[in-house]
Amino acid sequence: MSADGTLFLRIDGVDADPAAAAVAGSDRGLNYGDGVFRTVRVHGGQITAWVRHAQKLASDLARLGLARPDLARIEGDLVQLGAHHPECVARITVTAGASARGYRRADGGVPLTTIVRATALPEWPDHIARRGIELRLCSLRLADQPVLAGVKHLNRLEQVLARAEWDDPRISEGLTLDVAGHAICGTMSNLFIVEGGRLATPDLARCGVEGVQRGRILDWARARAMPATVEPLSLDRVCSADGLVLCNSVIGAWWVNRFEGRRYARPAWHAELAAELDRDG
Amino acid sequence: MSADGTLFLRIDGVDADPAAAAVAGSDRGLNYGDGVFRTVRVHGGQITAWVRHAQKLASDLARLGLARPDLARIEGDLVQLGAHHPECVARITVTAGASARGYRRADGGVPLTTIVRATALPEWPDHIARRGIELRLCSLRLADQPVLAGVKHLNRLEQVLARAEWDDPRISEGLTLDVAGHAICGTMSNLFIVEGGRLATPDLARCGVEGVQRGRILDWARARAMPATVEPLSLDRVCSADGLVLCNSVIGAWWVNRFEGRRYARPAWHAELAAELDRDG
Repeated sequence: MSADGTLFLRIDGVDADPAAAAVAGSDRGLNYGDGVFRTVRVHGGQITAWVRHAQKLASDLARLGLARPDLARIEGDLVQLGAHHPECVARITVTAGASARGYRRADGGVPLTTIVRATALPEWPDHIARRGIELRLCSLRLADQPVLAGVKHLNRLEQVLARAEWDDPRISEGLTLDVAGHAICGTMSNLFIVEGGRLATPDLARCGVEGVQRGRILDWARARAMPATVEPLSLDRVCSADGLVLCNSVIGAWWVNRFEGRRYARPAWHAELAAELDRDG
Repeated sequence: MSADGTLFLRIDGVDADPAAAAVAGSDRGLNYGDGVFRTVRVHGGQITAWVRHAQKLASDLARLGLARPDLARIEGDLVQLGAHHPECVARITVTAGASARGYRRADGGVPLTTIVRATALPEWPDHIARRGIELRLCSLRLADQPVLAGVKHLNRLEQVLARAEWDDPRISEGLTLDVAGHAICGTMSNLFIVEGGRLATPDLARCGVEGVQRGRILDWARARAMPATVEPLSLDRVCSADGLVLCNSVIGAWWVNRFEGRRYARPAWHAELAAELDRDG
């Protein structure tokens, strides 16, 4: 393992030294954030929900006007990874590749750069599933940018700055709002609110990231005939909800016990949902 | 020179192979765009307006909550660069460095990553100074984000996507508006409008990049008692102006002869301004 925690590194389908430099100074991912990424859970040597992640990777690249990723090669990388590190977190980063200086992409495109990097699973306190987590409200407001909304691209300064707002280790996540005051996302997670027997998650047409686990939760709710809507959600609705759930591919589903002084209950189905997200699908 | 046009590369004050990889897979510049950059003109082995660029580099890093750059070391890099490539363009990229996975920066910070990369001067057609350039209107609207406005950070997908809107080589630059329809910037340049004997440039409190040459033009105007204001500028005012000037550290000052079918005259002082920006200062 290298000093930055890298367990495994493959660049463009080739094994690389985890301590070595990965991309050129001319890479558009480095220079402009011109690219996308996925963070996936490796469990039992397999990528949980790989089919959905692969679809999202391709559709996010298409949203940026970039080429299709070489999914077969990435799958080969992930087979290698799973064989060596069956329990870990992998980040798959695909950039617009190396180019001449300037915002303009080369005519006909240049080969994408693909980086598969694995790190250890984070160590969450044992009691998180039992006691839930504390959520705070971030002061940074997410900008409206429909052209980029939903895409997990490499321009993530808003999330970095929102996450830098607190360092109290008792607070696990921060909620970010849009300029109109709608709840959008956690810094690293999607949000669901529980209202009686219903779920709702923010509309992400103007900002935020549409995570794979968000889609899985919507499908899970539909499969059990639980009403689940995608709609603009005011901060008031978040505050007055019966429960709050945050999701991503590493944490699965966290329930919120406290948000800015308000208390929330653990949803009766939380353990079932968490187990569902742990499975492939 | 490497395939991507890199003439010279120094990483953290050390010479590097221009064809070699520059940053780690864990670098926060690559992963989140967590960093800033400067594009500077090297002329006669010197960096034009270095004092201003150095101030802007430091203040942009401070805006992101990052450490002060090692300006003495960067100056050493630039001395080496100027000795080998007296006429070129240099990009100075400073990122938040390598870190563990996640948006959270390490407590106490990690060393910044500094990349100095030089490429050849672009070859503009000879007639640009004489005939001016054609500007188009981009459909992409810049998002309002006061926390990042003015900073030349590494989250530049808006500029990449705006620049991807056209490939007609007769069009040299695209103007981007904010969501309210105010003119803000070119994809790679700042804008001034000429109204009689006055200059005005967009207010950049909500989006856009405050370039070094923009500040120099404001100072130049003040020094010759030409009124020059910073204010919100509607697209109508751009359309009805007597002249339009675009600036950055590579192009200096371009005058616009055509914008979406409208014709503009070359400002009487254009050659004087271009010469001023070519000088150090």
